[in-house]
Amino acid sequence: MYYQAISQLTQNLRTIETWLDKAEEFAAAKKFDINVLLNGRLAPDMKPFIYQVQSATDYVKGGAAWLSGQKPPPYEDSERTIGEVRARIQKTVAFVESVKEKQYADAGRQKVSMSWAPAGKFLVGENYLLQMVIPNAYFHIAMAYAILRHQGVDIGKMDFLGPINWSGG
Amino acid sequence: MYYQAISQLTQNLRTIETWLDKAEEFAAAKKFDINVLLNGRLAPDMKPFIYQVQSATDYVKGGAAWLSGQKPPPYEDSERTIGEVRARIQKTVAFVESVKEKQYADAGRQKVSMSWAPAGKFLVGENYLLQMVIPNAYFHIAMAYAILRHQGVDIGKMDFLGPINWSGG
Repeated sequence: MYYQAISQLTQNLRTIETWLDKAEEFAAAKKFDINVLLNGRLAPDMKPFIYQVQSATDYVKGGAAWLSGQKPPPYEDSERTIGEVRARIQKTVAFVESVKEKQYADAGRQKVSMSWAPAGKFLVGENYLLQMVIPNAYFHIAMAYAILRHQGVDIGKMDFLGPINWSGG
Repeated sequence: MYYQAISQLTQNLRTIETWLDKAEEFAAAKKFDINVLLNGRLAPDMKPFIYQVQSATDYVKGGAAWLSGQKPPPYEDSERTIGEVRARIQKTVAFVESVKEKQYADAGRQKVSMSWAPAGKFLVGENYLLQMVIPNAYFHIAMAYAILRHQGVDIGKMDFLGPINWSGG
């Protein structure tokens, strides 16, 4: 299920680009700089939209890499424009899609260290996926959504979920 | 992994009670009614905190039930006070914890209908977990967090994640 779980996260990352389409329309209609939205926050001591996208992509990239036994490609975190934010999402999706299902064969046995973990501690694959990658990725995707939503961008929960793989009928 | 994934979601639901502790402290220190926070929203056309908790608990309850071949226990959605919100979380956690790991044996083969699905469509177990239960539960938990955070409650991401099962050391 590791491959499917990480694939689902890339789908949710992709939806951010559709929110950015709506953010651009909103900024154009109201005649303000799109950077206002990209630098928007929900609280003065909370990180802005761009950071939320950087962090969400990092968790998804990290999940795909560590669970397939690879080191994640380093990103510079230098995004400032909407084009750069889109590029960050696209390169993350491209990286994750480069990892094939069979490369996750040992995912459950991977040991993953986090820079902020207690000394000597690590997470085994399943805990890393369920306690770190999924909650953090959704946390930051949801904060990115909340920042745009709070500022008036016309997005709703179906924009968050993206396409659903219905069966039957 | 179904049992573990649903268990992790109940851990995240439980963290909401710790946010409520901080929300109560904040309201007491600033001498305002806690209901202001419980009815807070991020946008006028977005649902308030209490609804976010109702919806998050519904998705977790639904996940535990449908993936173990049961019908979810009905809830009335009548919560109005902080005590009732806490009770909603607690009864959801109690229900999920009543479902044992072996009851998820056929989770991947369950077919789950949603009231708002296209006619005749359903989700099979893995898609239901990865595309419906997890993203929606985290979406609503994160919106509940964002509403409190935006209004000044002193919560941070570790309050969202809850305890981490580190190994080693």
